[in-house]
Amino acid sequence: MKKLINDPMNVVPEALEGMAKAHPDLIKVHFNPNFVYRADAPRPGKVAVISGGGSGHEPMHVGFVGYGMLDAACPGAVFTSPTPDQMYEAAKTVHGGAGILMIVKNYAGDVMNFDMAADLLRGEGFQVESVLIADDVAVESSLYSQGRRGTGTTVLAEKILGAAAERGYDLQRLAALGRRVAENGRSMGMALTSCTVPHVGKPTFELGEDEMEIGIGIHGEPGRYREPLKKADEIVERLMEPILNDLPFKAGDRVICMVNSMGGTPLSELYIVYRKVAEICEKSGIQIVRNLVGAYITSLEMAGTSITLLRADDEMLELWDHPVKTPALRWGM
Amino acid sequence: MKKLINDPMNVVPEALEGMAKAHPDLIKVHFNPNFVYRADAPRPGKVAVISGGGSGHEPMHVGFVGYGMLDAACPGAVFTSPTPDQMYEAAKTVHGGAGILMIVKNYAGDVMNFDMAADLLRGEGFQVESVLIADDVAVESSLYSQGRRGTGTTVLAEKILGAAAERGYDLQRLAALGRRVAENGRSMGMALTSCTVPHVGKPTFELGEDEMEIGIGIHGEPGRYREPLKKADEIVERLMEPILNDLPFKAGDRVICMVNSMGGTPLSELYIVYRKVAEICEKSGIQIVRNLVGAYITSLEMAGTSITLLRADDEMLELWDHPVKTPALRWGM
Repeated sequence: MKKLINDPMNVVPEALEGMAKAHPDLIKVHFNPNFVYRADAPRPGKVAVISGGGSGHEPMHVGFVGYGMLDAACPGAVFTSPTPDQMYEAAKTVHGGAGILMIVKNYAGDVMNFDMAADLLRGEGFQVESVLIADDVAVESSLYSQGRRGTGTTVLAEKILGAAAERGYDLQRLAALGRRVAENGRSMGMALTSCTVPHVGKPTFELGEDEMEIGIGIHGEPGRYREPLKKADEIVERLMEPILNDLPFKAGDRVICMVNSMGGTPLSELYIVYRKVAEICEKSGIQIVRNLVGAYITSLEMAGTSITLLRADDEMLELWDHPVKTPALRWGM
Repeated sequence: MKKLINDPMNVVPEALEGMAKAHPDLIKVHFNPNFVYRADAPRPGKVAVISGGGSGHEPMHVGFVGYGMLDAACPGAVFTSPTPDQMYEAAKTVHGGAGILMIVKNYAGDVMNFDMAADLLRGEGFQVESVLIADDVAVESSLYSQGRRGTGTTVLAEKILGAAAERGYDLQRLAALGRRVAENGRSMGMALTSCTVPHVGKPTFELGEDEMEIGIGIHGEPGRYREPLKKADEIVERLMEPILNDLPFKAGDRVICMVNSMGGTPLSELYIVYRKVAEICEKSGIQIVRNLVGAYITSLEMAGTSITLLRADDEMLELWDHPVKTPALRWGM
């Protein structure tokens, strides 16, 4: 295992210490329980938007804390759900008196622990809503999830809902918007290589030298199938066909498109992927009106890519364009 | 070789096609000769800032084209200098009548080909100045360079000089500022793994399973030494000591610090590196006043990191904070 780490057990807290040192203008870090929160929290009168999940997917979620996106993010151990006390303490730290919206990826541990935190908070009189992201079309249920896994749409949801909260949406309106985003986003990913969880010390799975896995999960969970490595254009077709047919996306749809690195894939290859995604969308009459190309929801150093399409309406697009200022996503300010 | 590519010979043009599709608001791409240029070029009365170099280091340079940074970037084949006609045609396309500043990394092919382009342009009456970046303290000369290699300071120079050009600096003032940036920046990198040039098809070098290389070049050129893999904090000490002693940086200095991924290293590990860099700077009385943590000058999928420190004066810092809007670096707009 070759990694730039000290003690495999300290990867998460040390990375958080580094983040705190790098971005004191944007974020603060609370330890024990661990959460990252906006430096200017709490924001009175604003719904607090909170997410979290296992570490190892950076920049998601901790890199998306700041103006126009998350109020707090709760990082678990690598590939391990955060515990309820993290979300509970984060919510109590950042809430502004207008309720709490939780954005939860559909993994059993995440769902259970966010639910427990929500119950604790409701018991103390807080209003809490949650939005569940289950956008991965690869498999109908998986190692760690009942139902579809939550992947790339989470990034887009955090941007859009963060902007809406900034603009003063109340909790119910925000939750309704969040469910609409969740319903209209679809993703699928693939891997060229495995990743290695630091405290495990060996690759999560094995792939042959000429093999790839289509439909991989962000923790290395099994996908749909393995096959010999193909050209990028063919790989994109294998990802786009299930994505497009699922919603289904139709001619005339406007979409926000994310071409994401699983961690170890260079930017040049992502643009080769984007080139084919754009070509397929053009042929299908689907208009990509906004895009992200880069590493946004990763699986440590895994090589591979995932594609996310979100069918966006005017409201979502206007919120997408709202300024954002976080360690990992920034525009308009 | 596992990559998301089609034909190894088409990696660069296909990635450029993807970039053009993804960022039509920011950039245009010219093929044969290949260069990326600002969508709103030429900008009359502004010095045109041009850079370029071998591909495989993305986002540098093509990802830094746009408002507040480069007017054009000329990508060579992977790890291969661009040819003079690329810089010549790029300059003629984007020049705004106020001269051309070339930012050149110190590799023999780059220096020769930028010089030839400059001569051609001067022959046609253009004013051309160039700034040479030779900031890598690892080795005093290398496989592809006489004198030190040019690495991370290039990114910072492109940001600062791009802002200055936007603010109306004339060519001589811009070139003088560029030389000051070049003189005050120092970098050093290390690798955990090799990378594979697509059209070569096999790793550029071999590293043992428990080995790392300190002082690696961005094309995999040999560094200072190899040794067994150490903890991140010790690795950072091995990079920071030569950097700090070279300028030398002193107590009271204010620096812009970049902790850069060589491509395959995840963000969480970069923050572990930044944590130690910040600690060493604090102990040395050096104040990190701005930072970049991410993948900015890469070597394809190589795992590893490089650290760049630039001793910054008020003018550089003000220019650093000037808005920028490029595919890879964006703030203030």
